[in-house]
Amino acid sequence: MAFDRLYGGIEAGGTKFVCAVADGLNHFLEESLFNTTSPAETFQQVIHFFQPHTTSGRIKTIGLGTFGPLDLDPQSATYGFIKATPKPGWSNTDMIGPLQRELGVKIKLDTDVNAAALGEFACGASAGFDPSLYITIGTGIGGGYLKNGKPLQGLVNTEMGHVRIPHDFERDPFKGCCPFHGDCLEGLASGPAIQGRFDEAAETLPDDDPFWDLEAEYLAYALMNYILVLSPRKIILGGGVMQRDFLFPLIRRKVQETLNGYVESRSLLENIETYIVPPKLGNRSGVIGALVLAMSAES
Amino acid sequence: MAFDRLYGGIEAGGTKFVCAVADGLNHFLEESLFNTTSPAETFQQVIHFFQPHTTSGRIKTIGLGTFGPLDLDPQSATYGFIKATPKPGWSNTDMIGPLQRELGVKIKLDTDVNAAALGEFACGASAGFDPSLYITIGTGIGGGYLKNGKPLQGLVNTEMGHVRIPHDFERDPFKGCCPFHGDCLEGLASGPAIQGRFDEAAETLPDDDPFWDLEAEYLAYALMNYILVLSPRKIILGGGVMQRDFLFPLIRRKVQETLNGYVESRSLLENIETYIVPPKLGNRSGVIGALVLAMSAES
Repeated sequence: MAFDRLYGGIEAGGTKFVCAVADGLNHFLEESLFNTTSPAETFQQVIHFFQPHTTSGRIKTIGLGTFGPLDLDPQSATYGFIKATPKPGWSNTDMIGPLQRELGVKIKLDTDVNAAALGEFACGASAGFDPSLYITIGTGIGGGYLKNGKPLQGLVNTEMGHVRIPHDFERDPFKGCCPFHGDCLEGLASGPAIQGRFDEAAETLPDDDPFWDLEAEYLAYALMNYILVLSPRKIILGGGVMQRDFLFPLIRRKVQETLNGYVESRSLLENIETYIVPPKLGNRSGVIGALVLAMSAES
Repeated sequence: MAFDRLYGGIEAGGTKFVCAVADGLNHFLEESLFNTTSPAETFQQVIHFFQPHTTSGRIKTIGLGTFGPLDLDPQSATYGFIKATPKPGWSNTDMIGPLQRELGVKIKLDTDVNAAALGEFACGASAGFDPSLYITIGTGIGGGYLKNGKPLQGLVNTEMGHVRIPHDFERDPFKGCCPFHGDCLEGLASGPAIQGRFDEAAETLPDDDPFWDLEAEYLAYALMNYILVLSPRKIILGGGVMQRDFLFPLIRRKVQETLNGYVESRSLLENIETYIVPPKLGNRSGVIGALVLAMSAES
């Protein structure tokens, strides 16, 4: 028993890191959560956490789901590096090299939202539903789309948080806060976009503020687009903004109104409560998805 | 030689049908083009065209790429039927049954735009580019997305022509002509949408009409969304509206402006002339794709 294989998983977020050692997706042996500080200091904590298990040889692969923007082009000289990011100190950080060198293990990398999608598909809300879509609405907006249980690989990493949607300036004069696109989805509906309108954090805006209706509408436009383009069999909405439970029925209703019966599927017409859902693994989707990455790298 | 296998392909359009008999994708033995009239009369012409080759046993499978909306759910009792369509006489038409009965062959069915995508991927502009996207902009707007050379299968057939995009009513007071969504992409940028603004067909609107700038902008918003969500390695724009060659450079420029450098790929930044392109097979993409369907069904 003492020499059974273990797996390591890291969810690297802009705010916090979650690390886990597990022998299965549902059985964590150790778990650690700490704040994201400088790269050097943060990596030191990660290394300290995993070292006993990598030294013993029980962990040979660690899955890493990380915040970005991330260079995921295997041909690139900076594969696995974080690109330009507003997060101080993290632009141009190699996310793989230090861990591989210090721990002597293989690192299997993907984006945080792809990891969350993988976690939910393995043992969460989208288990058995292919294709599936995980959208996170928080500091940024991003999506992980799985087909045959794998993230979609294309020209580049998908960046579906930046889609363009209708924006009625009369009703909502906010110009949007995306430095690239102004009023794309992320520019209109992310946590910082909410804060930009009210000078208060999305967390403290009261449940009965009329703004939430607009928030639900923007998200519904984007979901409609994702449904028409990707045709997922399950949509999971996670991230900080979606901690407001009351948003779910609002969004579902607006998706139905916006699609207006066009997509003739029971999932949308009758069973939308089980079609657009919160994550089942709560805030562990990402780290469990990182374990999935580690396991798939060894199989 | 006389008993070599042949393949049949049908492109069933709302305006015309194209039928072909071929022994390879680049070698047609016979081809026929006729107007789409009533289902009974049109099917009669199709049957008449193929009968010599099905009777001789040389054609055992016919690929069919058809206009829609189409029921492509294999579980459905009306699989292969055209659903409610404004095309007189064609609502609720079984596209498979009559051909299968009269010709004694297997029919391999997909949408017209998926067939066009398959044709271009087999021997056209997207050959070697995976994933790829074919968008048709004509009477309607639709898209065929191929991953690993196969159309994306999900909850339902994708309907990416109906995505929602920004619409500035001050600049363009046209309400949109989509009966389901008003000013979705199809409601703003399809042939009938152009006609709805000018009381003249898109075909007769002069090249220097300032409207084309708006048309290119709407298409660029949609392409940006497709790029962010699907990350295709090649985008082909076909259909009647795209017969206007001058739209290509306009659209490419607006895609670059709208994305604003966000997607760091040479395909978008430097080589967009070879990234967003017209079909290479001209108006034969669909019927060649139908032949691909027939061949893949037998392999």
